[in-house]
Amino acid sequence: MRDRFLRAGRRAPVDRTPIWLMRQAGRYLPEYRALREKYDMLAMCRAPELAVEVTLQPLRRFDLDAAILFSDIMIPLRGMGVDFEIKHSVGPIVANPVRDRRDAENLRVVEPERDVPFVMQAIRLLRRELDGKVPLIGFAGAPFTLASYIVEGKPSRDLLRTKSLMYGDSAAWHTLMDKLAASVSAYLLAQIRAGAQAVQLFDSWVGALSPRDYRAYVLPYSKKIFDALSATGVPRIHFGTGTATLLELMQEAGGEVIGLDWRVPLDQAWDRLGDIALQGNLDPAVMLAAPEIVEQQTRAILSQADGRRGHIFNLGHGILPNTPIENVERLVEIVHSFVVETLR
Amino acid sequence: MRDRFLRAGRRAPVDRTPIWLMRQAGRYLPEYRALREKYDMLAMCRAPELAVEVTLQPLRRFDLDAAILFSDIMIPLRGMGVDFEIKHSVGPIVANPVRDRRDAENLRVVEPERDVPFVMQAIRLLRRELDGKVPLIGFAGAPFTLASYIVEGKPSRDLLRTKSLMYGDSAAWHTLMDKLAASVSAYLLAQIRAGAQAVQLFDSWVGALSPRDYRAYVLPYSKKIFDALSATGVPRIHFGTGTATLLELMQEAGGEVIGLDWRVPLDQAWDRLGDIALQGNLDPAVMLAAPEIVEQQTRAILSQADGRRGHIFNLGHGILPNTPIENVERLVEIVHSFVVETLR
Repeated sequence: MRDRFLRAGRRAPVDRTPIWLMRQAGRYLPEYRALREKYDMLAMCRAPELAVEVTLQPLRRFDLDAAILFSDIMIPLRGMGVDFEIKHSVGPIVANPVRDRRDAENLRVVEPERDVPFVMQAIRLLRRELDGKVPLIGFAGAPFTLASYIVEGKPSRDLLRTKSLMYGDSAAWHTLMDKLAASVSAYLLAQIRAGAQAVQLFDSWVGALSPRDYRAYVLPYSKKIFDALSATGVPRIHFGTGTATLLELMQEAGGEVIGLDWRVPLDQAWDRLGDIALQGNLDPAVMLAAPEIVEQQTRAILSQADGRRGHIFNLGHGILPNTPIENVERLVEIVHSFVVETLR
Repeated sequence: MRDRFLRAGRRAPVDRTPIWLMRQAGRYLPEYRALREKYDMLAMCRAPELAVEVTLQPLRRFDLDAAILFSDIMIPLRGMGVDFEIKHSVGPIVANPVRDRRDAENLRVVEPERDVPFVMQAIRLLRRELDGKVPLIGFAGAPFTLASYIVEGKPSRDLLRTKSLMYGDSAAWHTLMDKLAASVSAYLLAQIRAGAQAVQLFDSWVGALSPRDYRAYVLPYSKKIFDALSATGVPRIHFGTGTATLLELMQEAGGEVIGLDWRVPLDQAWDRLGDIALQGNLDPAVMLAAPEIVEQQTRAILSQADGRRGHIFNLGHGILPNTPIENVERLVEIVHSFVVETLR
C-alpha cells in the first residue's frame, strides 16, 4: 500500500509529502456534477454504491495519497432525531432545531448499525475497491460544529443562538453536547470497525469561540471522542478553521494530527505545538488563481514544513466548486516533487 | 475633560479603565430605533443634526469614555464613484462592483470637503455639543475591507471574488488599493481637522487572509494611511476581526492602539506585541447572556490586562442589536469599578 499518508500521521519518515484534499470528492469534478444531476446529495450519501463511486472519482484523476469517504457531517443526525435537509447553495436546514433542555433531552444517541448502516457498507465496499492502493479516511462533525447546525437550524455567520444556549442554559448545552459526543464516538468507532484507516473530526466552526469558552464548553466533549478512539490505533485528525488561538486546546482535546486553516503559518503552528503531525494549509481561494500563484504559495508552505516529519499537505478548508482541474493536477505534482528535491 | 480614553491610547496612567463600544450608537437603543422608523440609515449619516443626535444617544444613558461619530464605512465611497445602498438586515449592496482594471481606474480619489462635507459638519457640531466632556472618535474602513465590499458587491463570507482579483489581476488590485488608501487618508485627515480627537481604522474582514497575503496585498496600503496621519498626533486605533495571526503585521502597518476581537486572549496579545495599547475584547455574544456571565467574562479580561497601561475596554466587534440595555449598564459599571479596586 502507498502508506505515506498513514506514516506522516505517525510522524514516521516518508518518501514524499502526502496530499489529499478536503471535499476532493465533490462539485469541482465534472463527473461528480454529472451524477448530481441524477441524484440528490443525501441520496448519494445513503446509497453505498454511489458513495463508493464518488469517493473513487478523484483518485482516478489525481495521484492522491488517501481516499476520504463521500458523506456529509449531518448524516448521523437523523438517527438522533434531528430532521434536516440540505438546501442547494445554502446548506443544512433543520426542521426541529434544539432550543431548550427538553429539545436536547429528546435527542437519541446514534446507533450506527441501526441508523446509518449504509456508511459502514460503503466503507467495506471501498476497502475492497481500493484494494490497499491508498488508505481510506472516515470522518464526522465535532460536537460544537454539529450543535451549531442543530441549534441555529441553518448556516449562520455569528452562531448567536448557539452561543446564547451555551451561555444561557448550561443544562441544555451539556445534555446536547453529551449526546453528540456519545453519538460521534459510536459513529467513528463503527467506521473504524468497518475499515476506515484514519478518521478526521471536523470542528469547522469552532473558530467562533474564544479559548476561554472553548475550554469550558467544547474541549471536554471533543476529548471524550478522541479518548474513545485511542485504543483503535488509527491516526485521528482534528480539524477546524479560524482556530489560531485554539490550537493548543485542540491538541489537548486529542488527535495525532492537527488540521490547520490557511491563517496559521505552518512553521509557527509547529513551534507552538511541538511533537505532533500537521495537516494543511493552502487557502482554497488560491486554487482559483493562475498556476504560478498556486505553485508559489504551495512551495512557501512546503518550505515552512522544512523537512519536519508529519506534514500532510491539504487545503485549509474544502476545495471550492469552481476550482480548475489543472490546478489540482499541478498542486499534486508540486507537492510530490518538492520533497524529493529537498529531503533525499 | 474626561481624558482616560486618550491617556490609555498613549499608555499614560489612568484612574479607571476607559470603555466605549463599537456601534454604541445603534440598533440596541430604543431611541435609535425610534429615529430609524422615520429616517433611512444613510440619510441619518448625511444629515449632520441627526448624526449628532444619534452619536449622543448612548452617552445620555451610559457612563462611556468616548463618543464615536455615527456614520458608516461605506459613506465616502460614493465620492469615489461607487454606487451603493445599505439593504436592511443584509448590508451594503454595490450597483457597480469593481471587477477589473478599467473599473478600478475609473474610481476617483475622495475629496472630503466636496464629497462628504456633512461628516466634517457633524464632527464640528459634536465637538461643540460634547463641550469637552469626552473625546470624539472618527473612523473609516480600511482599504482591504472596503475593497471587499466594492469587489464582491455584497457582504460575503469567503471573499472569493476579492481574493481572485487580488491573486489574478495585480494591476487592478493595486490601482484599487492605491485609490482607497489615498481616499481614506484624506478622509481621516479631514475628520481630524474638523475635530476628531482619535481615529479608528476598521479592517473588519482582513482576517480572511493569511499573513503571507496580508503582507503582500494589504499592509503597504494600510501603512500609507497610518503614515499620513502620524503628524497629527491623535491616537490611531487599528482594528480587525479574526486577526490572531496578523497582529504583528497590523502593528507594523501602524496605530498606537491595536483593536482585538474576542478570539485572542488580551495577555497573549500583549506578550506578543509589547509596547502598544490594546483595545477589547469581550465577545459581543456574551452581552446577550445573563448579567452573571457578562460580569464573569468581563472580569476575566480585566484580570488579563493585569494593571498594564494602555487598556481600552471594548467588545471584540460591534454591539449586537438585541443586547439588553441592563447588560450595557452593568458592563460599564464593572469596568469602571474594577480598576479602582485593583490599581489604587
